Amino acid sequence: MTVITLTTDFGLTGSYVAQMKGVILGINPEVRLVDITHKLPPQDIRTAAFVLDTAVDAFPTGTVHLVVVDPGVGTDRDMIAVDCGEHRFVAPDNGVLSFVLDRLPPRNIMRLDESQRRPGAVGTTFDGRDIMGPVAARWSLTDDDQFPGEPITTPPVTLAAPIRISAPDAIIGEVIFIDRYGNAVTSIDRSQLKDITHDRLVVTVGRTSVIGLKSAYGNVPSGTALALINSSGRLELAINQDNAASCLGLVPGQEVIVSWPDDAFPAADPESTRDSAG
Amino acid sequence: MTVITLTTDFGLTGSYVAQMKGVILGINPEVRLVDITHKLPPQDIRTAAFVLDTAVDAFPTGTVHLVVVDPGVGTDRDMIAVDCGEHRFVAPDNGVLSFVLDRLPPRNIMRLDESQRRPGAVGTTFDGRDIMGPVAARWSLTDDDQFPGEPITTPPVTLAAPIRISAPDAIIGEVIFIDRYGNAVTSIDRSQLKDITHDRLVVTVGRTSVIGLKSAYGNVPSGTALALINSSGRLELAINQDNAASCLGLVPGQEVIVSWPDDAFPAADPESTRDSAG
Amino acid sequence: MTVITLTTDFGLTGSYVAQMKGVILGINPEVRLVDITHKLPPQDIRTAAFVLDTAVDAFPTGTVHLVVVDPGVGTDRDMIAVDCGEHRFVAPDNGVLSFVLDRLPPRNIMRLDESQRRPGAVGTTFDGRDIMGPVAARWSLTDDDQFPGEPITTPPVTLAAPIRISAPDAIIGEVIFIDRYGNAVTSIDRSQLKDITHDRLVVTVGRTSVIGLKSAYGNVPSGTALALINSSGRLELAINQDNAASCLGLVPGQEVIVSWPDDAFPAADPESTRDSAG
Repeated sequence: MTVITLTTDFGLTGSYVAQMKGVILGINPEVRLVDITHKLPPQDIRTAAFVLDTAVDAFPTGTVHLVVVDPGVGTDRDMIAVDCGEHRFVAPDNGVLSFVLDRLPPRNIMRLDESQRRPGAVGTTFDGRDIMGPVAARWSLTDDDQFPGEPITTPPVTLAAPIRISAPDAIIGEVIFIDRYGNAVTSIDRSQLKDITHDRLVVTVGRTSVIGLKSAYGNVPSGTALALINSSGRLELAINQDNAASCLGLVPGQEVIVSWPDDAFPAADPESTRDSAG
Repeated sequence: MTVITLTTDFGLTGSYVAQMKGVILGINPEVRLVDITHKLPPQDIRTAAFVLDTAVDAFPTGTVHLVVVDPGVGTDRDMIAVDCGEHRFVAPDNGVLSFVLDRLPPRNIMRLDESQRRPGAVGTTFDGRDIMGPVAARWSLTDDDQFPGEPITTPPVTLAAPIRISAPDAIIGEVIFIDRYGNAVTSIDRSQLKDITHDRLVVTVGRTSVIGLKSAYGNVPSGTALALINSSGRLELAINQDNAASCLGLVPGQEVIVSWPDDAFPAADPESTRDSAG
Repeated sequence: MTVITLTTDFGLTGSYVAQMKGVILGINPEVRLVDITHKLPPQDIRTAAFVLDTAVDAFPTGTVHLVVVDPGVGTDRDMIAVDCGEHRFVAPDNGVLSFVLDRLPPRNIMRLDESQRRPGAVGTTFDGRDIMGPVAARWSLTDDDQFPGEPITTPPVTLAAPIRISAPDAIIGEVIFIDRYGNAVTSIDRSQLKDITHDRLVVTVGRTSVIGLKSAYGNVPSGTALALINSSGRLELAINQDNAASCLGLVPGQEVIVSWPDDAFPAADPESTRDSAG
């Protein structure tokens, strides 16, 4: 029993998501459909690429990930199917797969074409329902060793990678996502922090500096800012039991600096200092 | 494996949707449940009727569509089950099925009654969980040739059709839905436009006029208004990569006029003119 | 085919819900997943406990209810699995199960531990995905007579019960939930009202008093306030076709008083009186 995941910016107020699911179930009635999210900011390919990347590893081998954030629908942008071995992807070729494909190297890539448009489709403004959904549904019927077309060698479109610089005395990154709790997920990865004593780290975003990495939100008093490695392995800035993004004015794209000064901060006050003069 | 779709105004913050699904799965553990939407404006039968109508055709033959937008719950309004051959419907008889039944003529209609209330139901304020859900679940267990009761001949309640007038020199309709992107879907159908040269059409809503029909959002520059036939075959007003409803002040019910003047607009400027004096 | 329900405060904008579902489907590919809600107010254990309690009875015997509202994740708070016979629960031991366990006495309780953390889990901030989800998934594979560990005798953490006082001449309770329609659900139960003539009841919240209990929202004119026993058996304050919470300023925690005066109100005006001087 194969899983198809769905990642879109369709929202939940109209029937777009349901139309895509109906078409998929008409082709593979037994497939398991799992929503990743449908509430991506409209046409925000970059956030879509990030959210998809956080979700993929949790799914079983053979899952088909259908991603439809597609501002170029109906123009000459390509649509692609990508086989990465354990995971399979169907999406417009607009960069939405670039973060995940950076980690999971493609084995085969194919371009979708008009011959895959479902019979009776109305218009050319909903390729998620009329081309990509049907391709994902048919692919989910086959073994993950099978590839549904002729492989191409052109690499997929790639988004600019998030800023993630490891300098000798600092690591510089950016906020890439604000989650529902107001936690600010950054582009800085645990692998970049593994050789640094976690207690000595200073994480600075805007006018906020936090000292040390915690292992749980509840390791600081309620209302206190903290930094930790989150459940996707990324550095994250949070406030225990409050919304860091709104309290501290954090937004995607904002610069994040990790430093490890020798003696800038007294050991006596190891918790966060908000609006610190430094 | 049958599909039941769910269309309600229950929202996603409480447990109403889940209660209905739990009862359905208790009757048919194998049924596939697909949400159309639960975020309809509360008690908005007209929007429910429209959204349902856009979704139905994507689903496989034999699907049971359960629609619970039911401000009259517990009063003497009827509940009905309607067999249209390929599709089956269960809903309060308040007009919520009227747009879809206008396209898909009913073969059989039956009235639900108190004998179908599930045992142990608390109160009479949740007939979606206690009567209509169970009827849909039991119906999904049977072949779509079977009808679960005594057919009646009374026609279902009908909403006033959206305005859609084809005059000799203009077509007049109305905005019927604003989607998540801010696109304004109108009551004007592609069949009404098929004999008119698409390049010469002028679509006017409020103070905005757009010339010509495009085939994709991306066929005009970013930020530019356009009109197209959408994925449901309806005339739609949009702005490429922006929100037409908020930028242009479009709301459901607003009048839409399609005209085809001989020489009112110079060929040199074929894109949209916002706030045109005409 | 077993059902797992999911109740969280994860929201629908990121991939947390999907990650948990992906892990569960990797363990039990056939399980039916039903969302109760993911839109609980962040870290609001009390609202979670209430919403869960309203949902459980609708689900089939053997359902596993996974509840992840877990502000203490990663600290030394416990996680528990609770077998109540017909229903099974997996949750942090923070009181989120206390309302439902008050009705459904536990047969067995076990404490989850680190040995149940899934291999390869990143960090310790997402026990819903890494411990509780896998435990629920494995439990859903077994008969509901089987208990997945060593029973303990420590009782689960209990939240303060909602106010619900039956005095000789009044019943005092509180608003515990505002639903999507703006209906205010109270802690007062139909069992407390069964010996009182429903027509004579006066329900008072803030400056609003409503006389009598109705059986349907539509039993009063549109825009009129009413009280009824809702579909969960609780006293509820509503306005027919409008939003009582916003019109009347109702909020969770607000005191609700039910009285049954002998002759305080004339029989001639049996409907609601808003902002009554009394």
